[in-house]
Amino acid sequence: MPIDPKAEIEITAFGWVPDFAKGLVKDLRVRWALEEAGLHYRVRLLHARAKPADYVQQQPFNQVPCLRQGELTVFESGAILQYIGEQSEALLPRDPKGRFAAIQWTYAALSSLEPFIQHRALLDSIYAGEEWARLAKPRSDELAQLRLKQLSERLGDREWLDGGRVTIGALLTVTVLRIAGRAKLLGPYPNLVGYLQRGQARPAFERALADHLADFTLPEGVAA
Amino acid sequence: MPIDPKAEIEITAFGWVPDFAKGLVKDLRVRWALEEAGLHYRVRLLHARAKPADYVQQQPFNQVPCLRQGELTVFESGAILQYIGEQSEALLPRDPKGRFAAIQWTYAALSSLEPFIQHRALLDSIYAGEEWARLAKPRSDELAQLRLKQLSERLGDREWLDGGRVTIGALLTVTVLRIAGRAKLLGPYPNLVGYLQRGQARPAFERALADHLADFTLPEGVAA
Repeated sequence: MPIDPKAEIEITAFGWVPDFAKGLVKDLRVRWALEEAGLHYRVRLLHARAKPADYVQQQPFNQVPCLRQGELTVFESGAILQYIGEQSEALLPRDPKGRFAAIQWTYAALSSLEPFIQHRALLDSIYAGEEWARLAKPRSDELAQLRLKQLSERLGDREWLDGGRVTIGALLTVTVLRIAGRAKLLGPYPNLVGYLQRGQARPAFERALADHLADFTLPEGVAA
Repeated sequence: MPIDPKAEIEITAFGWVPDFAKGLVKDLRVRWALEEAGLHYRVRLLHARAKPADYVQQQPFNQVPCLRQGELTVFESGAILQYIGEQSEALLPRDPKGRFAAIQWTYAALSSLEPFIQHRALLDSIYAGEEWARLAKPRSDELAQLRLKQLSERLGDREWLDGGRVTIGALLTVTVLRIAGRAKLLGPYPNLVGYLQRGQARPAFERALADHLADFTLPEGVAA
């Protein structure tokens, strides 16, 4: 069990979020990578609606996760996964071809896929009921579906994208597909559903998700 | 002048795009980094509306740029910039602290800043005139302004973000601010305007922009 209060690696996570965000907050991505790498870590819990005033020094957008190890602080889950990958050849191959295949898929997940999928998903969750959200849906749907279709075509009948195994790129792509799955966008792409299921069936993912969910221990109300 | 038809590094770029996209297509980011690194490159021009059917093998989202050098193919501008940075210590420091500061800002630029700024910008360009775009503007504006404010606070009166010089992270952030500048979103943030101007005043940027613009040589019409 990699959670260890005395571990050298610290990550930040939220101890309270609204229900719809549980299972999707980005500390899950880092926990999963740490589990795959077998690295011990401790967790610093923050309240999503009451972060310490100085947290922005550590994470300029006031988000989680942020990783600290000794003198080093890293924010942005993509960068954190690269840091973890450099301590685990399984997640980030050492040969240039395998290495850049993994790295390029982290950027693809976070900038070519997630923004479109996330935008479409939010129209049916936090923005459901807004008139603009209803009207914006057709175009948002078109963009999200285009990127999912392109990912589906690239994956084909392979198990894990270009690298052929669970690299940091494949792992991040799975977590982005979780957003799409929850928003019911994956119907036309059985191979993406299978990919998502394979990712979620990994013992490292299951442990990371259980720990992520178990850490929502803070009360909703906060002192003003 | 790093453009050289015999160079080992090849990048893809568009030889035709609609006017509003000129100066913003992502090959500019890679050209700029190559100029800063002093690396020679050749350009493979594609028509934005008539890409070769097999290009998707190289770039799964049918976008530019893609980099090839020998056996290696890399897509996603963030990953390409890391590849270039590994050949240029000026762009990507070798010490872990400086290196991860640069890397985290590439992800920040591409996933914490660009999606919100780009969404807001598009509401006034390609979606201007759509009813849903008009109604979606207040929320989109709020999100884009929040991220710009956070970036402005982090930059403070520094010249180049955390690393103190033009790393791949600082460079990508400047190119994202170009989108914000063109969409007139930077009014409240004089320090971001200054940062953008400092980036754009670099000779390497000026050469990259000139070459990017000079390469729009293909006719608008394409054979069906």
